Amino acid sequence: MRRALELAALGPAVGDHARVGAVILSPAGDVLGEGWHRGAGTPHAEVAAMAEVPAEQLRGATAVVTLEPCNHVGRTGPCALALIEAGVGRVVYAVDDPGEHAHGGADRLRAAGVDVVSGLLADEAEAFLERWLLSVRTGRPWVTVKWASSLDGRVAAADGTSRWITGAAARQHVHEQRAAHDAILVGTGTVLADDPSLTARGDAGELLADQPLPVVVGDRAVPDTAAVRRHPRGLLALPGHDLADALRTLRDHGVHSVFVEGGPTVASALIADGLVDEVLVYLAPVLLGGPRVAIGDVGVGSIGDRRQLDVTSTTSLGPDLLVRARPHRPRTGSGRPAEGTAPTGAATTADQAQNDRSTA
Amino acid sequence: MRRALELAALGPAVGDHARVGAVILSPAGDVLGEGWHRGAGTPHAEVAAMAEVPAEQLRGATAVVTLEPCNHVGRTGPCALALIEAGVGRVVYAVDDPGEHAHGGADRLRAAGVDVVSGLLADEAEAFLERWLLSVRTGRPWVTVKWASSLDGRVAAADGTSRWITGAAARQHVHEQRAAHDAILVGTGTVLADDPSLTARGDAGELLADQPLPVVVGDRAVPDTAAVRRHPRGLLALPGHDLADALRTLRDHGVHSVFVEGGPTVASALIADGLVDEVLVYLAPVLLGGPRVAIGDVGVGSIGDRRQLDVTSTTSLGPDLLVRARPHRPRTGSGRPAEGTAPTGAATTADQAQNDRSTA
Repeated sequence: MRRALELAALGPAVGDHARVGAVILSPAGDVLGEGWHRGAGTPHAEVAAMAEVPAEQLRGATAVVTLEPCNHVGRTGPCALALIEAGVGRVVYAVDDPGEHAHGGADRLRAAGVDVVSGLLADEAEAFLERWLLSVRTGRPWVTVKWASSLDGRVAAADGTSRWITGAAARQHVHEQRAAHDAILVGTGTVLADDPSLTARGDAGELLADQPLPVVVGDRAVPDTAAVRRHPRGLLALPGHDLADALRTLRDHGVHSVFVEGGPTVASALIADGLVDEVLVYLAPVLLGGPRVAIGDVGVGSIGDRRQLDVTSTTSLGPDLLVRARPHRPRTGSGRPAEGTAPTGAATTADQAQNDRSTA
Repeated sequence: MRRALELAALGPAVGDHARVGAVILSPAGDVLGEGWHRGAGTPHAEVAAMAEVPAEQLRGATAVVTLEPCNHVGRTGPCALALIEAGVGRVVYAVDDPGEHAHGGADRLRAAGVDVVSGLLADEAEAFLERWLLSVRTGRPWVTVKWASSLDGRVAAADGTSRWITGAAARQHVHEQRAAHDAILVGTGTVLADDPSLTARGDAGELLADQPLPVVVGDRAVPDTAAVRRHPRGLLALPGHDLADALRTLRDHGVHSVFVEGGPTVASALIADGLVDEVLVYLAPVLLGGPRVAIGDVGVGSIGDRRQLDVTSTTSLGPDLLVRARPHRPRTGSGRPAEGTAPTGAATTADQAQNDRSTA
């Protein structure tokens, strides 16, 4: 299974498909064939792996796959049927296929007398497929919201000027994140104010190989002369202000992950609506003060409504700091230290530290 | 000198004195005596070290001291004179004494025919003595400003509630910082709103050995029933709103370092006035949005006026993050990488990243 996960990682990181790997083993445990999914419209991993193996050796062989073999007829035939017809005797997979039309492969295999084992390295495979799994399970893409701010949470000085906040390393990291998502989303306000091109670029300004689909949300028109209209992926304009609806539409367009750089209004609305799967906060070592906050109203009236996160990593990027975090999920079991599971204590100002004296 | 620095560190970290260490060496380089300054009113390090050595062995010996021997008559006699009278032949020290009344010891030693060498391990000794040196050089204490905020820079939810933002580890770290400063400063607003005791406490709520002098700045009266009136160090109330003046007054009270937990108004004013030597930002993995920002107006109208910092460390404290930073100082020489010396590039929102295309 570990080899199957390695194979899965050979597939394209973006696009309307799951990254899946498969290994065909002989009854003696020898590797007969390997395969991975190379993107929408190409053979699934199991089929690619089986194609490497002579038909007679497939009879009684074991197929190890990172995702439950599919049961639907899409652009490729159902893999469960292909495995049955080839006479494969055993199928081992990591993660159940959550797809409405694709699931049921395991049942179909069992019904045909194939020995089926699921859950091997399931956590690793889940983590590897998390964006795709979330999009299939929820019907909306994985949402990464990014902002860059001063250490005190501002995106600009009082007069709106904002250049030279974060540095070159942080900027390059942002472009790599753009390339690692299927789409990039901003509001019409950002387009009108800043005329961004929304491309993913390298150090020298060159276009990277993977370009996110540019998506502009809002009712105002995108000018004919807007830079984003020259984007190599074209432009998807979604009218209205219902972000949940916009995300569902993106999913219908085959978008499994979206990188949001839309400015405080869009970012805050997504956070308020609980539609964020990961935040990337680029913190510059600078203080700005004033009214131009990175995040506005996120629907937190009282401290009990706070949006609790779990920090997954903290990285130095030149002089800046990147904090990656995800919505807090209470842990079950012993995976993480206790202080990760619930807020413990308070020390926001002298007052809180003091008020807690009776409990400290 | 390294041993002298180790000895210096044995002295009390807070109080109206410099932490100094001294070693007496024979002409052959053997250690004859060691000493360090144990706090105001006790013998200086050189004198303590000489006290360990028989008078006849002091003749022609070398004294290694972390700070230039003093030339004044304070609560202790001038060390320069004591060294001369003992017949010490050579004095090696790290850092010049910047004191108005204390400096000149080296000149006095040289005039008496003593061989004097200065600057040995000067950078280390400077760093070790930085708070004391700054307070002597500028006439105000070293100012550490602390705040704890959400990742988006808020200290409370919209309705003012703020408990359970940062965790127990961050809270304990704050108490240790209180103990490591001579004074703790807040505004009268904080006293009236939160009734803090401003003590430094341990895990179980017990008072730590070192307590900062509590200082309340502002014109409103501190109520007779205020918790801070029961502080073991008493209470220093400084009327008015001139923070520079308040700091000078603190220096006159023998305060070399002050820990500011005074809330957004006091913290922002100190930053705006350039009166901050270090900031400690405790970032909780939570988003709050809304109006209650940790830092208000710091006098930055346009991005060119930004308060640039150098991050000196980033530390995980349970689920929280502590970012320590100091006002940016342009580097001379090759001490730090180039990106630390000047802001390079900008990527605050999609717009900036785009607008930089021509330069990327």
